[in-house]
Amino acid sequence: MNVLVIHGPNLNLLGAREPHIYGGVTLAQIDASLADLGAELGLNLSTVQSNHEGELVEAIQGAVGSADAILINPAGLTHTSVVLRDALLATGIPFVEVHLSNIHAREEFRRVSLLADAAVGVVCGFGSSSYLLGLRALAERA
Amino acid sequence: MNVLVIHGPNLNLLGAREPHIYGGVTLAQIDASLADLGAELGLNLSTVQSNHEGELVEAIQGAVGSADAILINPAGLTHTSVVLRDALLATGIPFVEVHLSNIHAREEFRRVSLLADAAVGVVCGFGSSSYLLGLRALAERA
Amino acid sequence: MNVLVIHGPNLNLLGAREPHIYGGVTLAQIDASLADLGAELGLNLSTVQSNHEGELVEAIQGAVGSADAILINPAGLTHTSVVLRDALLATGIPFVEVHLSNIHAREEFRRVSLLADAAVGVVCGFGSSSYLLGLRALAERA
Amino acid sequence: MNVLVIHGPNLNLLGAREPHIYGGVTLAQIDASLADLGAELGLNLSTVQSNHEGELVEAIQGAVGSADAILINPAGLTHTSVVLRDALLATGIPFVEVHLSNIHAREEFRRVSLLADAAVGVVCGFGSSSYLLGLRALAERA
Amino acid sequence: MNVLVIHGPNLNLLGAREPHIYGGVTLAQIDASLADLGAELGLNLSTVQSNHEGELVEAIQGAVGSADAILINPAGLTHTSVVLRDALLATGIPFVEVHLSNIHAREEFRRVSLLADAAVGVVCGFGSSSYLLGLRALAERA
Amino acid sequence: MNVLVIHGPNLNLLGAREPHIYGGVTLAQIDASLADLGAELGLNLSTVQSNHEGELVEAIQGAVGSADAILINPAGLTHTSVVLRDALLATGIPFVEVHLSNIHAREEFRRVSLLADAAVGVVCGFGSSSYLLGLRALAERA
Amino acid sequence: MNVLVIHGPNLNLLGAREPHIYGGVTLAQIDASLADLGAELGLNLSTVQSNHEGELVEAIQGAVGSADAILINPAGLTHTSVVLRDALLATGIPFVEVHLSNIHAREEFRRVSLLADAAVGVVCGFGSSSYLLGLRALAERA
Amino acid sequence: MNVLVIHGPNLNLLGAREPHIYGGVTLAQIDASLADLGAELGLNLSTVQSNHEGELVEAIQGAVGSADAILINPAGLTHTSVVLRDALLATGIPFVEVHLSNIHAREEFRRVSLLADAAVGVVCGFGSSSYLLGLRALAERA
Amino acid sequence: MNVLVIHGPNLNLLGAREPHIYGGVTLAQIDASLADLGAELGLNLSTVQSNHEGELVEAIQGAVGSADAILINPAGLTHTSVVLRDALLATGIPFVEVHLSNIHAREEFRRVSLLADAAVGVVCGFGSSSYLLGLRALAERA
Amino acid sequence: MNVLVIHGPNLNLLGAREPHIYGGVTLAQIDASLADLGAELGLNLSTVQSNHEGELVEAIQGAVGSADAILINPAGLTHTSVVLRDALLATGIPFVEVHLSNIHAREEFRRVSLLADAAVGVVCGFGSSSYLLGLRALAERA
Amino acid sequence: MNVLVIHGPNLNLLGAREPHIYGGVTLAQIDASLADLGAELGLNLSTVQSNHEGELVEAIQGAVGSADAILINPAGLTHTSVVLRDALLATGIPFVEVHLSNIHAREEFRRVSLLADAAVGVVCGFGSSSYLLGLRALAERA
Amino acid sequence: MNVLVIHGPNLNLLGAREPHIYGGVTLAQIDASLADLGAELGLNLSTVQSNHEGELVEAIQGAVGSADAILINPAGLTHTSVVLRDALLATGIPFVEVHLSNIHAREEFRRVSLLADAAVGVVCGFGSSSYLLGLRALAERA
Repeated sequence: MNVLVIHGPNLNLLGAREPHIYGGVTLAQIDASLADLGAELGLNLSTVQSNHEGELVEAIQGAVGSADAILINPAGLTHTSVVLRDALLATGIPFVEVHLSNIHAREEFRRVSLLADAAVGVVCGFGSSSYLLGLRALAERA
Repeated sequence: MNVLVIHGPNLNLLGAREPHIYGGVTLAQIDASLADLGAELGLNLSTVQSNHEGELVEAIQGAVGSADAILINPAGLTHTSVVLRDALLATGIPFVEVHLSNIHAREEFRRVSLLADAAVGVVCGFGSSSYLLGLRALAERA
Repeated sequence: MNVLVIHGPNLNLLGAREPHIYGGVTLAQIDASLADLGAELGLNLSTVQSNHEGELVEAIQGAVGSADAILINPAGLTHTSVVLRDALLATGIPFVEVHLSNIHAREEFRRVSLLADAAVGVVCGFGSSSYLLGLRALAERA
Repeated sequence: MNVLVIHGPNLNLLGAREPHIYGGVTLAQIDASLADLGAELGLNLSTVQSNHEGELVEAIQGAVGSADAILINPAGLTHTSVVLRDALLATGIPFVEVHLSNIHAREEFRRVSLLADAAVGVVCGFGSSSYLLGLRALAERA
Repeated sequence: MNVLVIHGPNLNLLGAREPHIYGGVTLAQIDASLADLGAELGLNLSTVQSNHEGELVEAIQGAVGSADAILINPAGLTHTSVVLRDALLATGIPFVEVHLSNIHAREEFRRVSLLADAAVGVVCGFGSSSYLLGLRALAERA
Repeated sequence: MNVLVIHGPNLNLLGAREPHIYGGVTLAQIDASLADLGAELGLNLSTVQSNHEGELVEAIQGAVGSADAILINPAGLTHTSVVLRDALLATGIPFVEVHLSNIHAREEFRRVSLLADAAVGVVCGFGSSSYLLGLRALAERA
Repeated sequence: MNVLVIHGPNLNLLGAREPHIYGGVTLAQIDASLADLGAELGLNLSTVQSNHEGELVEAIQGAVGSADAILINPAGLTHTSVVLRDALLATGIPFVEVHLSNIHAREEFRRVSLLADAAVGVVCGFGSSSYLLGLRALAERA
Repeated sequence: MNVLVIHGPNLNLLGAREPHIYGGVTLAQIDASLADLGAELGLNLSTVQSNHEGELVEAIQGAVGSADAILINPAGLTHTSVVLRDALLATGIPFVEVHLSNIHAREEFRRVSLLADAAVGVVCGFGSSSYLLGLRALAERA
Repeated sequence: MNVLVIHGPNLNLLGAREPHIYGGVTLAQIDASLADLGAELGLNLSTVQSNHEGELVEAIQGAVGSADAILINPAGLTHTSVVLRDALLATGIPFVEVHLSNIHAREEFRRVSLLADAAVGVVCGFGSSSYLLGLRALAERA
Repeated sequence: MNVLVIHGPNLNLLGAREPHIYGGVTLAQIDASLADLGAELGLNLSTVQSNHEGELVEAIQGAVGSADAILINPAGLTHTSVVLRDALLATGIPFVEVHLSNIHAREEFRRVSLLADAAVGVVCGFGSSSYLLGLRALAERA
Repeated sequence: MNVLVIHGPNLNLLGAREPHIYGGVTLAQIDASLADLGAELGLNLSTVQSNHEGELVEAIQGAVGSADAILINPAGLTHTSVVLRDALLATGIPFVEVHLSNIHAREEFRRVSLLADAAVGVVCGFGSSSYLLGLRALAERA
Repeated sequence: MNVLVIHGPNLNLLGAREPHIYGGVTLAQIDASLADLGAELGLNLSTVQSNHEGELVEAIQGAVGSADAILINPAGLTHTSVVLRDALLATGIPFVEVHLSNIHAREEFRRVSLLADAAVGVVCGFGSSSYLLGLRALAERA
């Protein structure tokens, strides 16, 4: 089972970025943890991070035929990007939405996700563990 | 680490209840899976299910001093019970909110949770796996 | 055909309770009228009244396998109880929602029902006759 | 007791019109059933159907002095016609509002009635039986 | 100066209709008062009443070339008819909107007029005098 | 019959103030016209203008026992002053609300009046004639 | 392929009516253009215009069995008529909604159509060409 | 004068529960203070606390004939329970609503009370003194 | 402990003003009662009433250094005056908000207070007793 | 006449992407059809597709001086991109907005376009024909 | 160029008032800074502060003929005073709106200004520098 | 002190773009003016303009360690980009938001900024001077 892991805008700053909200773990550390867990679960992982909506869209489009599932942290695009939603729907690849922070405990506009109703499920609030739990969720569906 | 697992109203019907939404797994099976995983993770689990808001409140109140964390599927009370929120806040015990179904893909009123902003995090949409993932999330915080 | 009749919270006070709104008929008189009409229509009736949401939920759950239809006046829970809705949906038993008063002619919040879209139909505004009409509606579906 | 039965716009198409929503019974069949029940209940019925709001208004106005009650299915005008409401209020004749379909289980805008708070009561969701139940409700008030 | 006076739906019932709201004056009496005042002010009046939106629209359309101003009580159509608004805008004839009752002191939906922003002005709440005041307002513009 | 005429804030600027909206007539001219019409109608008029809500409130309070009716153009306070509403309600003196401009054809917030539902009636949109029409309306009630 | 062309209220005034919004073309000219294009595309056209909602409803009802498609400019009824929507749904005939003006560039209430979600598609903003484009759209579906 | 004092859900935790919001006084201490003040004011007090809406409803129902007034802190049910409102209205016993915390200074949803408009009055924000003030208010009405 | 008592606009009319809402007690009587209770509680009271927002603001500003607490009935300014809120916040003097009537049982706009979330607490609905209860609340904080 | 055709994000997937919504035609086929029709209508077409908002903006900016009109399917950006709106407004080039699907028959958020009020007109719901109709609309304006 | 500087209610408290929000600079210091900068920029300044809306209105009215521009910090009136807006519009004098604090980072109701759309521009969030920047903005327009 | 100046999408068109809204000054001229003022104030400026949200995000990310402050005109992204907000928050660099036009005097959606509450302050409406004033505001904070 092949899984595409997508990190949305600004996640490249993890570790440095508002650690009281997002924790002190870096994106590289998250990717390493995911790699470890992927190996344990028998999953092949590929990973992309971008601050450009268009690149994320094209990564999703490019997953057709190569990925069986997508694990995505859409970051700030969660609340604003119909384009990202359309890309995910267009490919038809099942995806899990994850968030480091608890999006229900922050600004009001973060409580609305334009992707969540199309996702298999959502995990939020557990810091970098949100990714690992989301990956397990995908593995269990296989 | 002691974890109180709380199943909200109507979850005693799982397996028989709208299986196209909630899956065919029974609550007993979920409890068995949780027990297995709890054992694996070194957690002591106690479990309660009730269709009465008041009993759930008292289960939560009773957890003070005996539970280090709560794993709760508040079911239909998610969207309507300030009383449940108050009980959780009053005890100060960290809790994780889980849902079997993807609450974002159903009736509009299910998208609003009165508990989520006070939770550590939320897991939804993975059927009975939502519980297992939520339990792992609690274990990793320990 | 077996019909479970459910009277929601505060309906035990009928006759004494705000008679300008609910009329002067007591719940016992309503039950007697229902029994008479049930006999006439060849229906077996069982009846429950409770002021506890949880008991109502369990009455509904208990109807699986024994009742072919439910006649319910959810009273104040009409506007607030997702749990009651979930119980009715979980059993899959067809139900009719009735109200003594015209819920459209009172406080604004009474115009919204959390059950009505899942009901076979709704009867309101005819005092105790609302129950009898609702029972007839169920009989005609048989 | 004289009852004026009013069928709103498009109800002349019943039987052919969206039978999955409105059922396969024709308006003529409904009128025949109403006539039978009216005879049984000792009511004198007159009936009008129109696709013109103005004609319905004038039928209501013309009922002053000749009808003791009105049984009305306002159809699509339910949600939009203050004029119809005004006609009913102006005559002061008590009326019952009925709907074939369950208006709570369709488009959102169908949940709001501009007439219901001025009605004696409302019956909806039972197909052609809604009319018969509404007629009974009127008879019981006599 | 020629003025077309338009009475909307249900105004033919005036005098009999809800006198606590609309007063006991009949439409014929209002028309007589308007005729008297029109004569005094040197205005030529023609008058139409209809319960049919379409007839009102056509009366407005027909006023092009023959009426210099319109005095209209749109009654229940005030709050619902874009068609009436379009007719008035299409003719370009200046109009004054009048209401017998104080539309701000009744149901919430009566506070919104789809015509008022296109009118010269609005008079409401003075019973039959609203018409007379509106006519004076038109005369003073001449 | 004694009538208190109240001009709200900024009306002292009339004639100079935004003449495309309010016309070129000065407040002195309006008062002169009102005096003439008052004399014709046999009304005793007293007049006050203030830019201070408090002074307007006290003018209204002072009218108890000396004025039989109030003619008020509340100007910008129309949309914001519960205090003015309370003063008018407290005295129990019937009042007519007038506006020079058509408040429905301007900024959205001008369409809401905090006074109108407590007024006898409202006249708006006829420039200085709005006052004269409002005075006539009061005279006809006498 | 038979097409029923429906012109809603006030469209009989085209050419004279607010030409800065609707253009200077008359309805007769539009019908002539449609006839020419219909001939070119091999379509049989029949046409109706009415200012009466009821007549439009009956024209739609009458199209069952004789028309394969409907091209409709519902004009002011677009935003207010559930009855028109019901007529179109009841017949099941596919229809295209057209508007001369760009309804998104006018009053806010014109942006909401009660028909559009049930239409095959919508064309607006191109003056009389909107009709021709709509007709082509229907022809291409044949 | 007999007064029933009702403590809603979670108030049994007072003293331990979020003391920064609710203060450090226990429910037993509040009851003792109320007893002292009741004695001083010549009132007979009975007291109930429950975490079950149904039990609170039945306590209210049971007060008919034995209590002249009710002092209630509905806690989390304030914002969600139509059933509690109905119970209070059904008995017709005058009641005062009290809150320990200032409900206007917390989550937005706490600003709306489903009971307050039916209460004699409301006291909030003074910690345990809110109860004592509410009791005085009832005594002064006697 | 020095307490400044502030009476907002129109409260000088108490006794005469809408006695069915505000009761028959005059402001002088309220001040006398407050003086008595203040003496009993060992509080020094000074009192101000004004119909001018600006004077109230300046009374509040002037309380810095001389008053330890403020007891305020903001009357109609409750719902509209950010300026009053700012004055209270600027001085930092703790204040209690009181209302004679139950503001939850009147017009919808009276349910929203611009001050309440900044107050120590709120008392409403007990007529002149609201003031006395509010004063006690302040005394108990001392 | 030179026309710039713009295809928004994800349209490169057409044919494969959700064919039940968007049809089975590919973007290349649409471009070919547009080229054919452009040739027939005497239009010079250039075409761009991008998944990057920024590239679309720059394509629009680059059209100044070279394109007389723009035919744009903004896809998911329709509902979210003020930036795209600003680009179109900044160039002042007239544009037509087209959609393959009927945006009124899908998710609620798709009914709002941030571009439509600035467009010449809008065509939606006709699959690939929407483009062709939009191109004709532009040609007819020439 | 003559500039009238207007300080709204409560600004006389600056320095003492909530210094964590408004800073520690006094109004006298701000006026001195403005005088210095005015001299540097060749502007004649006059200044007014009032806690009375009416006085501010009259200061604005009095500026006609003597001031070329207005620099105003409307303080709490920003969000509530149509009267102030009307005064500014009535004079036609261009004005700049300034705020010491960042009104977007405080209570929700502070984000709405009733003046801003009529201003030349707005400066907020820079403490006393907001005034100086606003003055520069006016000078650059000269 | 190093300042990063960021120009959002479409600002490269300044001078040519809707000059009645944005003025006739080009971006190069603005940059030159900023350079001059920066030199005068002793600030080191670097500047970036992009039509790509992603590039702007990366410019902001790249400012960590090199810029002490950011001066940003987010243009159309102001109202839609959570991603831009996140980038600014992630870096923790203080920023000032500026707009050429008065965003309160345009389309309703332009009044809401997703950045403003996180900014030091906001300047809008002064054309190119908005930038200069914003730069001064930053300099004064140094």
